[in-house]
Amino acid sequence: MSDEAAFIELLKGVATGVGARGLLDDAALFVPPAGRVLVLTHDMLVEGVHYLPGDPPEDVAWKLVAVNLSDLAGKGARPEGVLLGYTLSGDRGWDARFVAGLAEVCDVYAVPLLGGDTVAGRGARTLGLTAIGSVAPGGAPSRTGARPGDGLWVTGTIGDAGLGLEIARGAMAGSAELLAAYRRPRAQVAAGQALVPFVRASADVSDGVLIDAGRIAAASGCAVAITLDALPLSDALIAAAGGDTLDVRIAAATAGDDYQLLMAVPPDAAAEMQARAAAIGVRIGRIGAFSAGSGLSLTYQGAAVPVPGRTGYQHGATEKDLAP
Amino acid sequence: MSDEAAFIELLKGVATGVGARGLLDDAALFVPPAGRVLVLTHDMLVEGVHYLPGDPPEDVAWKLVAVNLSDLAGKGARPEGVLLGYTLSGDRGWDARFVAGLAEVCDVYAVPLLGGDTVAGRGARTLGLTAIGSVAPGGAPSRTGARPGDGLWVTGTIGDAGLGLEIARGAMAGSAELLAAYRRPRAQVAAGQALVPFVRASADVSDGVLIDAGRIAAASGCAVAITLDALPLSDALIAAAGGDTLDVRIAAATAGDDYQLLMAVPPDAAAEMQARAAAIGVRIGRIGAFSAGSGLSLTYQGAAVPVPGRTGYQHGATEKDLAP
Repeated sequence: MSDEAAFIELLKGVATGVGARGLLDDAALFVPPAGRVLVLTHDMLVEGVHYLPGDPPEDVAWKLVAVNLSDLAGKGARPEGVLLGYTLSGDRGWDARFVAGLAEVCDVYAVPLLGGDTVAGRGARTLGLTAIGSVAPGGAPSRTGARPGDGLWVTGTIGDAGLGLEIARGAMAGSAELLAAYRRPRAQVAAGQALVPFVRASADVSDGVLIDAGRIAAASGCAVAITLDALPLSDALIAAAGGDTLDVRIAAATAGDDYQLLMAVPPDAAAEMQARAAAIGVRIGRIGAFSAGSGLSLTYQGAAVPVPGRTGYQHGATEKDLAP
Repeated sequence: MSDEAAFIELLKGVATGVGARGLLDDAALFVPPAGRVLVLTHDMLVEGVHYLPGDPPEDVAWKLVAVNLSDLAGKGARPEGVLLGYTLSGDRGWDARFVAGLAEVCDVYAVPLLGGDTVAGRGARTLGLTAIGSVAPGGAPSRTGARPGDGLWVTGTIGDAGLGLEIARGAMAGSAELLAAYRRPRAQVAAGQALVPFVRASADVSDGVLIDAGRIAAASGCAVAITLDALPLSDALIAAAGGDTLDVRIAAATAGDDYQLLMAVPPDAAAEMQARAAAIGVRIGRIGAFSAGSGLSLTYQGAAVPVPGRTGYQHGATEKDLAP
């Protein structure tokens, strides 16, 4: 049996829905939920760029699915299915562990694997995933809707994954919680669906709070000011970083890979949104505000702070590069 | 401007539909056509595996879209949109020519680019595309529906792309028509939609007529017998091959990359299907028949012919490898 045939046999155990046709066909069928609009995203992970070659394959599968579901979460969408684009690793043990992680993450998020493609690779593995979600008509906020006076809100804690990456690289010690934040990010799928009625603009934090907030502001034709004191940090991060300083907060706000939600919320919707978040057990915090104008500004302990030269991960030529 | 920013600026000229949100958001919106079932496919092309490093980038873009639309065509689906997964080439001229080819193929097939992802690459480029199509409920034939007594039919001519690959490699001389069959395959989108009401099973021919017919037979629990004399060959192929022999026909039937449709058709539907194909100007021919039993058998000039050891391109460890 070829590597591909062996891999597809394993995948059949995951793709058990009727629309997947047992992975025996060239295409999958999907009956769209009546009266809903689909939200589509496709994100890729490249070995050495988006994950470390030594990362556990189960975690790579988890991350591939989670980063795509995070894009859906940022739009308040309910996951409906995923399609996998897989580069065979040339290592059946690695492939099998990848499928185990895929099964786990699809189960946790109750999202069916519908189909995909498997190819022989050349060099670094490139993994792609297409995620399909759905929203009520008008229900997917874009990045462009923030208005002066809106608050900037964020879910969860920020910066954990950035330190997790340093732990994974062996560059520092830290808790398993931080390592898990890097290797097994949680897509804020439930929070996205619950909070989207209250937001005017939203996105997930993949490249860093500063750069992603700046993108919402730019797309919306607003300025945004962030109060670094308000950035929610975990106890694990503060312990690993050795304290809670301006430098630590800047590092957290530019680390990326947080996969939390960043939201522009009108003041009169904030109280109801907080109540809704509390009801589903999701931590949210207000970390800044939009105003007329343009650009990003920062304050810390009541004083203005220069915006760092690097506000997060740029893609393309300067994309995050995990290679030594 | 980074390579990625430059690439996305070019892509914005292609992704002009409202659902693409100007490529400014993390996800695309897609309103599914009412009362239709979606057909989803994701196929990847790897440099050196599925195309030659020296192939024109416009043609690589064409092929990436066409092979995915061919999967939709095999299910009788109408294309609705595509998502691109692109590995930056590190060569802005190459990237720009790729986008030009993408614009052309999307225009020819009237299929909107909805979104996607762009990553920095490591080694060989890996390109992915997700194509979304739609069919009427019950309208997408699988590979499993062939029944004993059904005829095996094929659209167009077979084997042209196989010789086109040899021409592209510089291994032989031949017409521009054959080279175009390899570099710019035509997805049989109109034929698929027109003929699907008459078929019990169908698929596109991507790996070779013999292997793909064998897969339909196996999935349907039937045997299939192919009359090699009936295999439709182009004049260009016969001229380039230096004649019409059994060896030439075996080579054509195992070459792959044809992107024609292979269909199981009940005898009582054949006449009406032929009339429909003639009405839309699509060549179709009956090249064999399904029967009770299992396996693939071949005849040529009235005599049985041994099935070759290689019936087409296997994927995975033995996937077609274009590297020297």
